[in-house]
Amino acid sequence: MAPQLDGFFSQVDSLSDHFIERLRKAVAIPSISAEEARRPDVVRMGNFLADELKALGAEVELRELGKQPHKEHLDLPPVVLARYGNDKSKRTILVYGHYDVQPADLSDGWNTKPFELTIDEKDRMLGRGSTDDKGPVLGWLNAIEAHQKAGVDFPVNLLMCFEGMEEYGSEGLEDLINAEGKKYFADADAVCISDNYWLGTEKPCLTYGLRGCNYYSIEVSGPGADLHSGVFGGTAQEPMTDLVRTMATLVDTNGKIQIPGIMEQVAPITADEETLYDEISFEMETLHEALGSKTTIFEDKKLTLMGRWRYPSLSIHGVEGGFSAPGAKTVIPAKVIGKFSIRTVPDMDIDKTNECVYKYVNEQFAKLGSKNTMKVFAQHTGKWWVASPSHWNFNAASKAVERVWNVKPDFTREGGSIPITITFEEATGKNVLLLPMGSSTDGAHSINEKLDKRNYIEGIKLLGAYLHYAAEEPTS
Amino acid sequence: MAPQLDGFFSQVDSLSDHFIERLRKAVAIPSISAEEARRPDVVRMGNFLADELKALGAEVELRELGKQPHKEHLDLPPVVLARYGNDKSKRTILVYGHYDVQPADLSDGWNTKPFELTIDEKDRMLGRGSTDDKGPVLGWLNAIEAHQKAGVDFPVNLLMCFEGMEEYGSEGLEDLINAEGKKYFADADAVCISDNYWLGTEKPCLTYGLRGCNYYSIEVSGPGADLHSGVFGGTAQEPMTDLVRTMATLVDTNGKIQIPGIMEQVAPITADEETLYDEISFEMETLHEALGSKTTIFEDKKLTLMGRWRYPSLSIHGVEGGFSAPGAKTVIPAKVIGKFSIRTVPDMDIDKTNECVYKYVNEQFAKLGSKNTMKVFAQHTGKWWVASPSHWNFNAASKAVERVWNVKPDFTREGGSIPITITFEEATGKNVLLLPMGSSTDGAHSINEKLDKRNYIEGIKLLGAYLHYAAEEPTS
Ligand SMILES: [Zn+2]
Ligand SMILES: [Zn+2]
Ligand SMILES: [Zn+2]
Ligand SMILES: [Zn+2]
Repeated sequence: MAPQLDGFFSQVDSLSDHFIERLRKAVAIPSISAEEARRPDVVRMGNFLADELKALGAEVELRELGKQPHKEHLDLPPVVLARYGNDKSKRTILVYGHYDVQPADLSDGWNTKPFELTIDEKDRMLGRGSTDDKGPVLGWLNAIEAHQKAGVDFPVNLLMCFEGMEEYGSEGLEDLINAEGKKYFADADAVCISDNYWLGTEKPCLTYGLRGCNYYSIEVSGPGADLHSGVFGGTAQEPMTDLVRTMATLVDTNGKIQIPGIMEQVAPITADEETLYDEISFEMETLHEALGSKTTIFEDKKLTLMGRWRYPSLSIHGVEGGFSAPGAKTVIPAKVIGKFSIRTVPDMDIDKTNECVYKYVNEQFAKLGSKNTMKVFAQHTGKWWVASPSHWNFNAASKAVERVWNVKPDFTREGGSIPITITFEEATGKNVLLLPMGSSTDGAHSINEKLDKRNYIEGIKLLGAYLHYAAEEPTS
Repeated sequence: MAPQLDGFFSQVDSLSDHFIERLRKAVAIPSISAEEARRPDVVRMGNFLADELKALGAEVELRELGKQPHKEHLDLPPVVLARYGNDKSKRTILVYGHYDVQPADLSDGWNTKPFELTIDEKDRMLGRGSTDDKGPVLGWLNAIEAHQKAGVDFPVNLLMCFEGMEEYGSEGLEDLINAEGKKYFADADAVCISDNYWLGTEKPCLTYGLRGCNYYSIEVSGPGADLHSGVFGGTAQEPMTDLVRTMATLVDTNGKIQIPGIMEQVAPITADEETLYDEISFEMETLHEALGSKTTIFEDKKLTLMGRWRYPSLSIHGVEGGFSAPGAKTVIPAKVIGKFSIRTVPDMDIDKTNECVYKYVNEQFAKLGSKNTMKVFAQHTGKWWVASPSHWNFNAASKAVERVWNVKPDFTREGGSIPITITFEEATGKNVLLLPMGSSTDGAHSINEKLDKRNYIEGIKLLGAYLHYAAEEPTS
């Protein structure tokens, strides 16, 4: 029997100004995790959430994570752990979000003050953190409140885990999740994370896969110190020349990875998958708009989506140690470090991929016949993630989308990585669903970040509806 | 008849403490031209020189050069123009030096306070500007004073041009030299610049050639803004990939320039030149020491010297716009600018060289088949310089070296550029000689810059002796 949601939905509409006010208060706290001086604001934001949750009747714990690694004078902001409901007869859903935000300053080019929620004539709610991730986090709180005010029984026990360091590497969170997997999170039946975006602007999606990321450094050194190119140019072998020539062998203009053994690990396409892409709502024009140019590798949607989701990619990010300022400087850098990363996909293995990279880079460098010294190593690695989209957790979310948005959601994967997803999966042993609230044009890490009013309000309904369907979806 | 120099020489020895004291005073003024906040110190240093010169009886003018380009709130430091002697029966020698210095801070790794002249147990006089270029500049003043105190007639009229912006591009000086070529400098018979170094540590040299420098940028752009490699990796053509692949085609590990039309312009080696290199005092070991490694292109002296002096070289300096900080960032930069320069030699032509570079880089980029946009352009260019080492100006300096150091100097060229050299040559139409005082280990732009006491004191004798020989050397 379909859940009765009308009372809850109309209550969300009635409370919409109140919910926007709650978001305004949250956006006004500049909880930038990357900036030391803002750490008190991050903590204040954690306390704000805790207070709101307590007021709604949740049990709340602020979990301290100790000192920030490499910045031992700085306390990590607390993780807000909360439980709403403890009825053994109900399912328990664990949700995750983050209350810290990316840096933002009016001088970066914002059209409005980044920490003042501003609603424009198109009902876009502009402000840092509006979509990433304060809107979605408050979505859960708002759903609780609307149930209470509508007098509708809350369908599940809700476990919440909101962190304050997501934009700065989620320092300390992995250990906590692993430690609490069979403790605080023990009765979780499924996990839901709302911290990503629709593929476009009109059609909701459920996300069941992410690429992994292996980040590499190639370090080439020779001279004892930086040299003057007038004095040493033509007499010394230059590390920068060797680095550039080595990096040039990694990938071609069309993204084809030149390292043997990488593509060989990629899972073959099934006939099923072949048919998936055509149905997905995605326009090359939207991509061109997001890209700000037409410099895509492919002209068609299917190859583009496959390039983003199901194939590895290799990007060269930059060079450390060279002359990187504007202007002209005639230095021969003594030591340069090239940075590149490979986005990984099923069934790539981290260790095997590293081996292929090391072997190839060493071979390419050896070909140069250089006396300089080269080291290649992984700075960090992270596994890809693919969940089962036919799990009841996804079925519940799919029905909720259909109910709220009157359309079946696209089932999508993403090119980026959310390492915490795999951590939750492994620590709880449960299915993890990514259920986005915002759309592709929200500009999460850019200037003028926004969340459409529609996505926020309907998103609150979506999160609530999802919990109702999750409560009764059969397990198969 | 050889000039009578004994009286002058012994006076220099007697006054050596006084001359070191003068250098101590000069080093104590942190006249760093690159740092805005130090501009008053640069001006103070110019005034110090002017006062010392006036006390010695020279006519002095402080020439203002107006505002600093791109920093219009900042006055350029004055050029100190001075004349000592105005006897129409004597030759007139124009000398150049600079009174500004490179930045220096104890925290950079100096063993002593950089602006306190410190004499160590090996009689090395450590301090910023000791060898570059305050020691040599004071050398001329000291030579005047020693003549006065020894009662020896000064052999020439001395014109002096000391600037305060050399370490920051000699802003404003070129115009002044061109304007004064036939005015203040009108009666100059030859020019002498003491602002370079011996090739090694034991044998003096005279320098008659410098390489030029053409500095290029390759700018590759595509996306409208920096991209996240998770989202766009595998779907967008990446400017950094194109830049790296283009730059990789410029030069090989052994410095061989891959651009057609460059080597073809190089003047052929004459039989005369072939024999020159063997006699020059230069050890690969000294080079390895200066380099801080054994990563030289060549194993032997002759090829190494030719690589430095008489062949062009191409160095890649770095990339602007990429991720250049330590750590890991998964950005796809939207616009990257690769910087490289070519050191030029006789008979290379600036325009022709530019054309070869533009054509080649455009061809290489076209081969990539990229939709990204590439622009290649010269940021600045500067011509190579070669003087006639058989000119009486060089003969005079050679005899002075033999007299002071008991050895015939090496006649050397250098790999670097001193653009002002060619400006003086063209503005006055006279022969320009580079007569170094310091040695190759002085570390002009490094931490722990020093001038050996021996090089300073014998250097004062050398500059004075040179003027004596210049006074009477036949014009051949
Ligand atoms: Zn987020
Ligand atoms: Zn984010
Ligand atoms: Zn200098
Ligand atoms: Zn210098």
